[in-house]
Amino acid sequence: MEFTAQQIADFLGGEIQGDPAIKVSDFSKIEEGKPGTLSFLSNPKYSQYIYDSQASIILVNKDFQPEREVQSTLILVDDAYQSLARLLSMVDQAKPKKTGISPLAYISESAVIGENAYIAPFVYIGEQVTIGKNASLHPHSCVEDGAKLGENATLYAGVKVYYNCVIGNNCTLHSGSVIGSDGFGFAPTEDGSYKKIPQMGNVVLEDNIEIGANTVVDRATLGSTIIRQGVKIDNLVQIAHNVEVGTNTVIAAQTGISGSTKLGKQCILAGQVGIAGHLHIADGTIFGAQTGVPNNVKKPNQTLQGYPAIPVMSFHRASVIYKNLPDLQKTVYALEKKIQELENRISSIS
Amino acid sequence: MEFTAQQIADFLGGEIQGDPAIKVSDFSKIEEGKPGTLSFLSNPKYSQYIYDSQASIILVNKDFQPEREVQSTLILVDDAYQSLARLLSMVDQAKPKKTGISPLAYISESAVIGENAYIAPFVYIGEQVTIGKNASLHPHSCVEDGAKLGENATLYAGVKVYYNCVIGNNCTLHSGSVIGSDGFGFAPTEDGSYKKIPQMGNVVLEDNIEIGANTVVDRATLGSTIIRQGVKIDNLVQIAHNVEVGTNTVIAAQTGISGSTKLGKQCILAGQVGIAGHLHIADGTIFGAQTGVPNNVKKPNQTLQGYPAIPVMSFHRASVIYKNLPDLQKTVYALEKKIQELENRISSIS
Amino acid sequence: MEFTAQQIADFLGGEIQGDPAIKVSDFSKIEEGKPGTLSFLSNPKYSQYIYDSQASIILVNKDFQPEREVQSTLILVDDAYQSLARLLSMVDQAKPKKTGISPLAYISESAVIGENAYIAPFVYIGEQVTIGKNASLHPHSCVEDGAKLGENATLYAGVKVYYNCVIGNNCTLHSGSVIGSDGFGFAPTEDGSYKKIPQMGNVVLEDNIEIGANTVVDRATLGSTIIRQGVKIDNLVQIAHNVEVGTNTVIAAQTGISGSTKLGKQCILAGQVGIAGHLHIADGTIFGAQTGVPNNVKKPNQTLQGYPAIPVMSFHRASVIYKNLPDLQKTVYALEKKIQELENRISSIS
Repeated sequence: MEFTAQQIADFLGGEIQGDPAIKVSDFSKIEEGKPGTLSFLSNPKYSQYIYDSQASIILVNKDFQPEREVQSTLILVDDAYQSLARLLSMVDQAKPKKTGISPLAYISESAVIGENAYIAPFVYIGEQVTIGKNASLHPHSCVEDGAKLGENATLYAGVKVYYNCVIGNNCTLHSGSVIGSDGFGFAPTEDGSYKKIPQMGNVVLEDNIEIGANTVVDRATLGSTIIRQGVKIDNLVQIAHNVEVGTNTVIAAQTGISGSTKLGKQCILAGQVGIAGHLHIADGTIFGAQTGVPNNVKKPNQTLQGYPAIPVMSFHRASVIYKNLPDLQKTVYALEKKIQELENRISSIS
Repeated sequence: MEFTAQQIADFLGGEIQGDPAIKVSDFSKIEEGKPGTLSFLSNPKYSQYIYDSQASIILVNKDFQPEREVQSTLILVDDAYQSLARLLSMVDQAKPKKTGISPLAYISESAVIGENAYIAPFVYIGEQVTIGKNASLHPHSCVEDGAKLGENATLYAGVKVYYNCVIGNNCTLHSGSVIGSDGFGFAPTEDGSYKKIPQMGNVVLEDNIEIGANTVVDRATLGSTIIRQGVKIDNLVQIAHNVEVGTNTVIAAQTGISGSTKLGKQCILAGQVGIAGHLHIADGTIFGAQTGVPNNVKKPNQTLQGYPAIPVMSFHRASVIYKNLPDLQKTVYALEKKIQELENRISSIS
Repeated sequence: MEFTAQQIADFLGGEIQGDPAIKVSDFSKIEEGKPGTLSFLSNPKYSQYIYDSQASIILVNKDFQPEREVQSTLILVDDAYQSLARLLSMVDQAKPKKTGISPLAYISESAVIGENAYIAPFVYIGEQVTIGKNASLHPHSCVEDGAKLGENATLYAGVKVYYNCVIGNNCTLHSGSVIGSDGFGFAPTEDGSYKKIPQMGNVVLEDNIEIGANTVVDRATLGSTIIRQGVKIDNLVQIAHNVEVGTNTVIAAQTGISGSTKLGKQCILAGQVGIAGHLHIADGTIFGAQTGVPNNVKKPNQTLQGYPAIPVMSFHRASVIYKNLPDLQKTVYALEKKIQELENRISSIS
């Protein structure tokens, strides 16, 4: 597929600076731009690359002010990253989709498979399972008894969905993710051993959710662990039993959320964050990387970082001083000594 | 199944406050309690919900003192969480268990499969493998050559057990867990590259162990990585080569234990803890969330947190001051100034 | 196989102290040494075990000075750990290797399989895939359309390689590792939901790379996520989209590297490190465990730790004071009081 700058500008509602007739047939990163490709500039960190980029077309934000001449044809749009997303989605959707049910899959007789589903070799579908139409199940994915999968859901290779879990429409689960494993619940006994609390609940993923590779969402002890609409979860994340994650919340890699905690809507959790159990986190909370959260967050729309999580500006100020703690300590010791000297001088005067 | 409060109280050895004849047929969380269900109150954080709960029966600890009227029938027991565990286990054990060997599994001729085992489609069982009686192997689980699996062991979908590893009786391994991958051992060479140290040992899981989803236990370089009886490990945990985890120790999600470290008995590790290699951690040690442990812990039964791990009370005190470091620094600077002023005044006097 | 001390010393170019004719047929850890086995002493922490070890032969570094009599025959070598590696490799390579293509595997007609490859039951190989000669694909491994696997590559059970990814020669991928899952890229929209940015790039692993169990390497948005020659990555590591990891860099378990960051050559990252996105980390950088890296590291060959990463000696000094912050604060308050007293005394004098 080949497009002109004019066609792309029309599709995106953008404005051309340069040659409307120039053609592209592929994408490139701005620092690796080649003739015949379209690139983009969104993060200002990469502005330096625009002047030497060989990309034929570059999408830029309307407010971009070049400091010197740019050779590429520019298309000015409101949001270069979103416009790129629209172009990539268009290309992505034009790719041929696999359909059909492999004779090498195992499908229980009581399972119901929607129209146009793709069921790859070595997929396992248990009893009473429902698979929505246009769903894609890649090799070695496994949907155990009683689970439900919505329309257009994609399970990449090796995804495991435990019994009775519910996956909504348009959900994408990446390889190795596990939905519905037992919550970590054990009661101590008198001899020091632990007795398992059977985890009788399930997991509910609502619609339009993305779950990263090797991420785990545990089933509830009773009731459901719930991931609300539009939530995006990165790789290697731990969601414990009975957690609830609010609508459109985004969780970066290697973050862990302990049991029964409720995360609000539109939160953003950076990587390697840890949140203790049985907490409420207000809507719109942003946690910086590696933050530890031992307490409720009641006020919405705060940005917090550190352990324990504090407002990010305070965290940065405290971090700077942390580095200089040895100096601060020396200063204090020096003051101690000076005061002693002053005392001596005063005593000698009076 | 339907039970009266009387039947449940008799089974648990509890005392009824309310209607002994009221019936329940399901469980519920206290904040979502519905008529016809049994709920429980163990964590005092949830006490507020007991007064409006619609649950027909609620298990509570004997020492629970209601502040106002409770509508539900209460059953007073020594430990509500343990009593719930007993009820859930009873229901859980009454569920029908899958048995039988799928013709879609691959089982080496030299493997020995115990009575009543469940071998799902697409299970792989290598040469000289032994599977204990009543074991359950879900789809895509894989037991490589020479490995042994005890009685009543459960491998959920996609569990991988490498060659020559040993899994005891009554062990439960959740989806995506990996037992026996190579330890991370490489010797630096003169040209800057690394030479792999073949990992010739294995992993031994003793009895009654639970391993969470996507958790990894690496095989030893020589000898065995050993997980002792009754250990419970959560999801996404890393156990490196030659580690030994003592009896009944509990390890929460995303914790990592480096090579050759020996953890004592009855320890509790919260989430995202990291322990360095070649250490000894005393019995009964408790590590708070996100703790980093660079040194041996010799004194048993301490609760430690932070980096480096210090007694938890000191950690909390230090954390509070950390937040206020900018203020502390300001105070110190103000003192410096004042002392200068005092010096000037003294000089002018003397 | 049985070898004499003389044979082993000749193979390693080492010097015997003891009985050149003594024979061994297995390996052991020094603290568990048994007659008929060979052990080694490299880490000085284990020196105490050499005096009572029952191992028939122990490899030691040339500069090892026994404090009292050692019963075992010693073989003195330049580097005991590397010499052990050589012996283990020799034994490892003598083990019979599986070959052959299982009739229970699924192999697309358009795939090309090299000579002597081992393709286990339930392996999935997609369209246009190339598998190099002598490659080993264990059960449930999956190589999707258009991906390439080099010579002598090993995919342990359950490894997933997404479409169009490239794995070089002599690469070893452990169970549950995922190569080529979508990068975590979403553009916010006006209604608060997020729009997925299709991830159109791939992952390239060059030669001689090891990837640990359940580690994830995401595909690039555009272009490639690149892991250079000789890189060794431990378990449960997150490598985000468009990252580049330099030659011979070593990454320990549970570390996470955010999108578009470029790690230099010969770096060493300890466990649970987190690195922010779009950074450059200089060659030879060493990060201590649990370090957080929010900024570029421009100067090569530094050892850094803490959040934010600072030189490790400063980090250790700051850590010590951190523990004593409550004392430091008390000292400051005491100084405040004393200054007040001094002021009063001065006022009364003047």
